[in-house]
Amino acid sequence: MSRGRSEQVLARRVTEAGAVDQGRRPDDVIVEEPLEIRLDGVRVATTMRTPGHDFELAIGFCFTDGLLAGAPVLTCRYCGTGSAVETEFNVVSVDTGGVAPEPAARLGTTSSSCGICGSTQLDDLRDRLEPLPAHDPWDPQVLYAVTEKVRAEQDLFTRTGSAHAAASFDRTGAIDVVREDIGRHNAVDKVVGRLLLDDRLPATGQGLFVSGRASFEMVQKAWAAGFEAVIAVSAPSALAVETATAAGLTLAGFVRGDAFNVYA
Amino acid sequence: MSRGRSEQVLARRVTEAGAVDQGRRPDDVIVEEPLEIRLDGVRVATTMRTPGHDFELAIGFCFTDGLLAGAPVLTCRYCGTGSAVETEFNVVSVDTGGVAPEPAARLGTTSSSCGICGSTQLDDLRDRLEPLPAHDPWDPQVLYAVTEKVRAEQDLFTRTGSAHAAASFDRTGAIDVVREDIGRHNAVDKVVGRLLLDDRLPATGQGLFVSGRASFEMVQKAWAAGFEAVIAVSAPSALAVETATAAGLTLAGFVRGDAFNVYA
Repeated sequence: MSRGRSEQVLARRVTEAGAVDQGRRPDDVIVEEPLEIRLDGVRVATTMRTPGHDFELAIGFCFTDGLLAGAPVLTCRYCGTGSAVETEFNVVSVDTGGVAPEPAARLGTTSSSCGICGSTQLDDLRDRLEPLPAHDPWDPQVLYAVTEKVRAEQDLFTRTGSAHAAASFDRTGAIDVVREDIGRHNAVDKVVGRLLLDDRLPATGQGLFVSGRASFEMVQKAWAAGFEAVIAVSAPSALAVETATAAGLTLAGFVRGDAFNVYA
Repeated sequence: MSRGRSEQVLARRVTEAGAVDQGRRPDDVIVEEPLEIRLDGVRVATTMRTPGHDFELAIGFCFTDGLLAGAPVLTCRYCGTGSAVETEFNVVSVDTGGVAPEPAARLGTTSSSCGICGSTQLDDLRDRLEPLPAHDPWDPQVLYAVTEKVRAEQDLFTRTGSAHAAASFDRTGAIDVVREDIGRHNAVDKVVGRLLLDDRLPATGQGLFVSGRASFEMVQKAWAAGFEAVIAVSAPSALAVETATAAGLTLAGFVRGDAFNVYA
């Protein structure tokens, strides 16, 4: 079951005019499989994800969810024992040598899959995170141009039509890390995990692109990682705007067609 | 904080040509707030949702997640005590008089926010759910027409550009229940909750429309509720196709422009 990030299934195609293919033909669809994430031996999350960059995902999740609390990541490995999960590549262990705080207390109120719901509402975030350092405004034209550039690198989306993407970019609009996943939050965690592995957090001077909406959880993850700006393909929620304002983070969301709004 | 489903924030508008409004103007954004769901006094989930139809959401979540296990819902009420959640309208208690099985055991592996990740992989689903009764094929043209009809009823999406929708429809393509939410899974749970409250489950002879992708969790929820068909605005995942096949459920996903694919 160690499948690629997409696989082919047979599908019948139907057009508006009513034509239905008699035969079926192969269509690329995105793969999703569960990934169990463990931190110092304790399961902290199970998420439906698109396989690939699993270590980045596991580390990024632990980081953005506040579970590392500054502890270093010593090792990260696949670990297939003692679990109902199907394959040995669907369990990843992140190890800090026991330096990270016991996650059990937090897990009572932290959602395991979206990484955000529950405990980490805005007030909790304010307790956990400092507002970002003051920074110069981002050039709206740079933000505007990022989407097209990322789109050109969304291989999985091009193939399957259903992958979310997240990407980091700098103040010139140059794209840095691009990751794709069936889950929006996973794509962001993969980008953050990559930056952490490269010792590049906090992401000062960097912006984060997300292909979906700018929900609270996206802004929370961006704040945790120290991004200065978030740009989303569609609109933000009210709580996302509020959170971005509290963080001192630039938040931009596309509106239809040829314009976008800067909210915070 | 008992806000409506959308609220206005000030935003600066930037166009491709580089024009930036000097002033800021109001823009409608979707509201998301946490909802804590309790079943017989035990917290079973906290989800970020768009307020509205909260009882349907809570009941639908408990149902599609298998937590009711056939138990009747006796009462459903707001309950604002003993929680860190901000307002009394952000906690909903579903009560079965203690008939539902103790949820604690399940919660160890069930995600609280997406309602699906973790325990309920395909094998677990097969243990929990019977394949759907055999049914006649759905008319592809009916499935095709549903999207436009639902779109016309997506008030919140029209206003904010960022709400997901779910809807039930019958074999003639007539739309029945439409619900919108910032979360795709919440929109589906609200539809299912409405049908349960109306004593219309299993949803024999009904199809389910979802405005996003057809992921595993969407198909799982449709299967649990007994829908015969799922149509999604974008493509399904491989696991979603596999799950629909196991369920005996028709699965259709839009491809670009003027055609869609029938996968299972």
